[in-house]
Amino acid sequence: MTATRTIKAEILSIGDEILLGQTVDTNSNWLGAQLHELGFQLIRITAISDRPEDLIRALDESITRSDLILITGGLGPTSDDRTKPTLCQYFGGKLVYDKLVEQQIKNLLSSRNVPLNQRNLDQSLIPDNCTAIKNSQGTAPGMWFEKDDKVLVSMPGVPFEMKEMFSIELAPKLLERFLPIRGRYRMVMTTGLPESYLAEKIADWEQQLPDHIGLAYLPSPGIVKLRLAAFGKPIEQLDQDLRRQADLLMQVIPESIFSQDGTSLEESLAKLLMENELTVASAESCTGGAISSLLTSVPGSSSYYKGSLIAYSYDTKRELLDIDQKILNKYGAVSRPVVSEMAQNARRLLKTDYAVATSGIAGPGGGTKNKPVGTIWIAACSKNQMVSRRFRFGDHRGRNITRTSMAALNMLRLLILEELQASR
Amino acid sequence: MTATRTIKAEILSIGDEILLGQTVDTNSNWLGAQLHELGFQLIRITAISDRPEDLIRALDESITRSDLILITGGLGPTSDDRTKPTLCQYFGGKLVYDKLVEQQIKNLLSSRNVPLNQRNLDQSLIPDNCTAIKNSQGTAPGMWFEKDDKVLVSMPGVPFEMKEMFSIELAPKLLERFLPIRGRYRMVMTTGLPESYLAEKIADWEQQLPDHIGLAYLPSPGIVKLRLAAFGKPIEQLDQDLRRQADLLMQVIPESIFSQDGTSLEESLAKLLMENELTVASAESCTGGAISSLLTSVPGSSSYYKGSLIAYSYDTKRELLDIDQKILNKYGAVSRPVVSEMAQNARRLLKTDYAVATSGIAGPGGGTKNKPVGTIWIAACSKNQMVSRRFRFGDHRGRNITRTSMAALNMLRLLILEELQASR
Repeated sequence: MTATRTIKAEILSIGDEILLGQTVDTNSNWLGAQLHELGFQLIRITAISDRPEDLIRALDESITRSDLILITGGLGPTSDDRTKPTLCQYFGGKLVYDKLVEQQIKNLLSSRNVPLNQRNLDQSLIPDNCTAIKNSQGTAPGMWFEKDDKVLVSMPGVPFEMKEMFSIELAPKLLERFLPIRGRYRMVMTTGLPESYLAEKIADWEQQLPDHIGLAYLPSPGIVKLRLAAFGKPIEQLDQDLRRQADLLMQVIPESIFSQDGTSLEESLAKLLMENELTVASAESCTGGAISSLLTSVPGSSSYYKGSLIAYSYDTKRELLDIDQKILNKYGAVSRPVVSEMAQNARRLLKTDYAVATSGIAGPGGGTKNKPVGTIWIAACSKNQMVSRRFRFGDHRGRNITRTSMAALNMLRLLILEELQASR
Repeated sequence: MTATRTIKAEILSIGDEILLGQTVDTNSNWLGAQLHELGFQLIRITAISDRPEDLIRALDESITRSDLILITGGLGPTSDDRTKPTLCQYFGGKLVYDKLVEQQIKNLLSSRNVPLNQRNLDQSLIPDNCTAIKNSQGTAPGMWFEKDDKVLVSMPGVPFEMKEMFSIELAPKLLERFLPIRGRYRMVMTTGLPESYLAEKIADWEQQLPDHIGLAYLPSPGIVKLRLAAFGKPIEQLDQDLRRQADLLMQVIPESIFSQDGTSLEESLAKLLMENELTVASAESCTGGAISSLLTSVPGSSSYYKGSLIAYSYDTKRELLDIDQKILNKYGAVSRPVVSEMAQNARRLLKTDYAVATSGIAGPGGGTKNKPVGTIWIAACSKNQMVSRRFRFGDHRGRNITRTSMAALNMLRLLILEELQASR
C-alpha cells in the first residue's frame, strides 16, 4: 500500500438559473459520483451567478483550496454566457479561432441536419493559453487551463454534452495528470421501510461495523439507500470487508434489499426478468403509467415487457380490462377484488408470465372517510399465485405515485424470486 | 419607489451524499426559486461534507458575506447527522429537551401509525440559544439562530419536510425580519426548437429588449425555457414591461410557446383540456407510458384522461390496439400508417375526444439503415382530423423518450387550439 496524497477537487457551477431555482444542478451530482469513482476527494460544490466578478471571486478562493477545479456552465451559443472571456482574461490569454474545433462543430451540425450560423462558428474561439477539449455532443468545446500546479477545466452546462466530454475526454487525462488514492463504497438499496424504522431494525448490525467503514442513510420516496464507505486499507481488503458487511445486512432485512451496487429497483427487476426469460405487463389506475414508464426506462425492455393497460375511469376498467361492473359497484375501484382482477386480466390479455396492478387514491382530491387519500391497493400475479396488499401512504400526489410504483415493483420482484426458488 | 437594501442570502447544503454524487441537491434549487420570489438575492449555494470542521469553515465564510444563511441537511434521526451539535456549539449554546417539539413528534408519529422510539424522541433536543421551527412532516425540527444581525436557519434535508417548513413557517418570519426589494421575472416556455436555432429565430426581438430586462436560455431535452428578468423600476411597471415583451415574442414563435409563467407542458395541456371539457387517451409504443405518466401527473387529471394502451410488441399492437397485421407487415411498426391507426383506435376504444400515439426506436439498440435509432413517428387525432409527423432525434434512450413525449403533447395542444379556434 502506497501513501498517496489526497487530490482535492471542487466544482463551480455557473448560472443565474441555478441560483434563481429554475434549473436543478444535476451536473454537480453526476460529477461528484465520477470524481469519487476516480479517487478524487470532492470537498465542495459551489453554485454562483453568471456575473464575471462572482466567477473571479470563486476562482480566487477555490484555487487556494483545491488541486482540481471543474467548472460547468456559461459556454452556450447564446448571449447570456460569459464564462469563456472571463476565464481567458483570468489566466491572461486572448481568444483565437481554433481550426480543429471549427471542424468538429461543422461535422456535428451537418450530422444533425441543423444549419450552421455565426453563433455556432464563434464557439471555435478559444483562449490561446488553454487546451481545447472535444465536445462530441454540442458546439461548445471544453477548456483545460493549468496554473501553479493546479488544473482548471471548463465544460459546457448542458448535461449530456458535459457527461460525454467528461467520460470520454477528461477522465483519462485527469487520471494521467493526477494519481489519486481510492476509497471503496457500496450502495445498498432498500425499499419499503421508512428511515427511522429501518435504523432501528438494523441498529445491532450498525453497532458492529468496524471503524474503517462508515454508514450513511439516503432517503427518497419509497427508497432508502444505505451507503457503506471504506477507506484506509488495501483495495482488496476494503472490497472484501464491504461484501461481508452487506451480506450480514442482507440477513437482517432480506425482503427490503433489492441491490447492493446502487442499481435501481427497475433495473434490478429488469435483470431478473431478462435472466429468466420472463415477461410482464401492468394494469394501472392511480399510477397512471408510472410503472410502465419505469419498466420501459431500461434499454432492452422489449424482451420482457409486453404492454400495459392504463385505466383511469370505471368505463375503461370495465371495457379495456374486462372488470366486472358488479364487482366495481360492490367494492369500489380501490379494493382488493378489483385490483386482483386488474392484474389477472392484464396477464391474460397481454399473455405474460407476470402482471402487476395498482388502484388507489393518489390525491390531493378524491378521498373518503373509509378510503382517505393515500389508500392504495397493489396486486401482483403469476399463473399460479396472486398477492395483494393495501398500503396507506400520505397526502402528496407525486410521492404517492412514486411510492406505489416502488412497492409494486418490489412485490413483483419478491413474487418472482419466491417462484424461482420453489421451482429449483 | 423606496430604495431598500439588497438582502443577500446563501444556502449551505450538508451531506457527503451530495459530494459523492449519490443525491441530487434539489433542495437548493427549490429554495433558490422561493428566495427569489420573496425578493432575496441568493448569491451562492455551497455543498459541503458532513464533517463538523467543514461546516464551521463554511459558516465563517458565509456569515461575512450574507445576511441570511439557510442550511439544509444533517438533522435526520440516524447517526450520520452531526449538524445540530455543531451549530449548537458554534453559537455557544447547549442542548435541552423541548416539550413542544416532543409533543409535535408524538402527534406526527401516532398519525402515521409509526411506533415512537428513542431516536425519534432525541430529536426534541434543541440548542437553548435558538428558536425551534415546527416540522409538520417529520421529526427533526428546524432551528433559527441570530448573531451580529445575521440570521441562520437550519432545516431538515428531506425535501418534503424542508419545503413544508419553509413555506408555512419560515417564509412569513423571513419577510417580517427582513424587508427585501423585489425584481420580477417571467418564464416563457418553448418546445420544439433547439437552443441555437431558437436564438437565431428570436435575435431581432432579443436585440430590441430594453436595458432593464435580461434574457437567459435554459435548455433541457425537448424544452427551452426563456427567463425574462426585470429590475430597477416599480413593480407594476416591471410587470407591464414583461407582459409586453412576452407578447411580442409570442408573435415571433407562436407554435413553440406553450406558457408564459413557467407552467409545464403537461399542466398547460391539462388546463386546456379541463377548461374545454375535453378528454384524451394515448397509445404508446416507444414512450412506454411516459406520456400517460405526464398526463396523470396533474391533480384532477381523471376529469380529462381516460386511459392508455401501452403496446410494446407486434402482438400487443395487433391484439389490444386492433392494428391490422397486414399494415404492420407492410410498413413496420415505426411508420405513419401504424402510428395513425394507433391514435385512431385508442380514441375509438377509449371513447375520447382526442388521442395521441407514438411509435419509434428509442434506442440504444433496434435501429436499421432506413430507420436509425431516434426515428420516431407521432400522431394526434380528433373526430375529424389526423396529424402525423416523423421526427429524427438522437441516440440517447432517456432523452428520446422525453423529447418524443414533449413533441406529442405539443402536437396535441396545437391540434386542440386549432379546432377550438375553427369552431368559434
